[in-house]
Amino acid sequence: MGHVLIGLVGAGIGQSHSPLLHQHEAARHGIRLLYTTIDSHDLGLNADDLPGLLRWARLLGYRGLNVTHPFKQSIVGHLDDLSAEARLLGAVNTVVFDDRTTKGHNTDGYGFRTSFAEHFPHAPREHVVQLGAGGAGSAVAHAMLALGAARLTIVDVDPDRADILTRTLAARFGSARVTTGVPGEQSDLLAGADGVINATPTGMAHHPGTPVDPADLRPGLWVADLVYRPADTELLKAARAAGAPTLPGAPMSVHQAVAAFELFTGVPADPGAMLADSAELLRTGG
Amino acid sequence: MGHVLIGLVGAGIGQSHSPLLHQHEAARHGIRLLYTTIDSHDLGLNADDLPGLLRWARLLGYRGLNVTHPFKQSIVGHLDDLSAEARLLGAVNTVVFDDRTTKGHNTDGYGFRTSFAEHFPHAPREHVVQLGAGGAGSAVAHAMLALGAARLTIVDVDPDRADILTRTLAARFGSARVTTGVPGEQSDLLAGADGVINATPTGMAHHPGTPVDPADLRPGLWVADLVYRPADTELLKAARAAGAPTLPGAPMSVHQAVAAFELFTGVPADPGAMLADSAELLRTGG
Repeated sequence: MGHVLIGLVGAGIGQSHSPLLHQHEAARHGIRLLYTTIDSHDLGLNADDLPGLLRWARLLGYRGLNVTHPFKQSIVGHLDDLSAEARLLGAVNTVVFDDRTTKGHNTDGYGFRTSFAEHFPHAPREHVVQLGAGGAGSAVAHAMLALGAARLTIVDVDPDRADILTRTLAARFGSARVTTGVPGEQSDLLAGADGVINATPTGMAHHPGTPVDPADLRPGLWVADLVYRPADTELLKAARAAGAPTLPGAPMSVHQAVAAFELFTGVPADPGAMLADSAELLRTGG
Repeated sequence: MGHVLIGLVGAGIGQSHSPLLHQHEAARHGIRLLYTTIDSHDLGLNADDLPGLLRWARLLGYRGLNVTHPFKQSIVGHLDDLSAEARLLGAVNTVVFDDRTTKGHNTDGYGFRTSFAEHFPHAPREHVVQLGAGGAGSAVAHAMLALGAARLTIVDVDPDRADILTRTLAARFGSARVTTGVPGEQSDLLAGADGVINATPTGMAHHPGTPVDPADLRPGLWVADLVYRPADTELLKAARAAGAPTLPGAPMSVHQAVAAFELFTGVPADPGAMLADSAELLRTGG
């Protein structure tokens, strides 16, 4: 291929590692790949601009786009075709332009499944609490149930959003396996859980803090944090201090990029090399 | 700079050398530059799409655009600012996006002036005939008068277009130095001329033939052809066969790219290296 032009569309993405992860992987394959960031916050774009963005990205030579908050769900209706997983999730993080069609994919679930299976193969999962029911949360909740969680409780500050995700999950996995939790009862929920997943933005630089009261952390409650910048969030630090097993967000982020890279280029990516690149970027604060 | 994304906008540009010329020059400077072709013919775009194209090229991370046939003139009214030369010519071949403004430049005249001065420093120029009054023709006609042509005759199949250019040139250089010629009297015009410039597309792969009757060629009539693909046009071959001095189109094309490269990147380009690249591309049919 002559070259591959890819972009990331979302709000507040100026510091994303995706450009360097994809570009470094492409360089290893001798592929000339340029990965841009299209920051809707800086550019004043909103969901109404998505049809124009999709049309012109294709015309201006883009091979595909990664999509992140706040467009993972709003972009779905503007695509010609969806992968089975994207259709199921109602959320897209990867768009590929073919000659005629614009197809949405979702590699977030793959990223979480792969990361969890690698790091937490034997983690107990009788009852898992997930905080956050947004675009990434939807993919991760499906993945957690596919990974065998006997029961998953979804907690979100927006109870309607949590309910919608719960109903979607119940339709696929059975209503006995998924319930909506009340944010005010989070401590009680965690007291009876094996693990907790943070799928909220809390812990990111612009959303400091921790979504879990450190008093609720204990050795018998594993903690998975989807936030990967900073690599070591307040939640992960508090979990380690409490003796809890921890799964950071970076490996999930890398594995979703591994799957996206293959969709964009048709070439399988090297997960080990991309994980090493990600660790180096996080280490150097890049 | 992190990276530079540039595109060429025009019709039938799939085989343009500009992407490789700019990318090779950027590589010599350690600049990560990707240069795409936005072919209006293949994509079904027309002049009505120029405002959208300019808006989205900026939003989608483009640093600038080169512009060629048929948009060099129609794009002028959609730009925030023009260089002095672009304003004078009413034609733009280079657009640069700054933080706030979209500025049009024209480097075609620079390309012709530099090429002519290098190859034809002592060529007589009492009377020069130029065939073609389009976007590139306008720049070249101004350049030829700036190079000291005592008299320039403009011939175009569209007499209105020739007249408009003649009036523009007369306003700047004086009406004694420029006239419109009648296509049917081309042989008579050439009989009294020192040189002829082909600024029509005739000689390109999709416009085969020669714009000058070989019978009109002679040692005392130099021939400059703006067509650079193929490198050796029917016109240039016939001119050499007639013993006429010839100036091919490639050096002009390279020098306009030299000036555009500096506008896009802020870094001076190496004309010698770009001329060598161009020769190699033409030699290998790339």
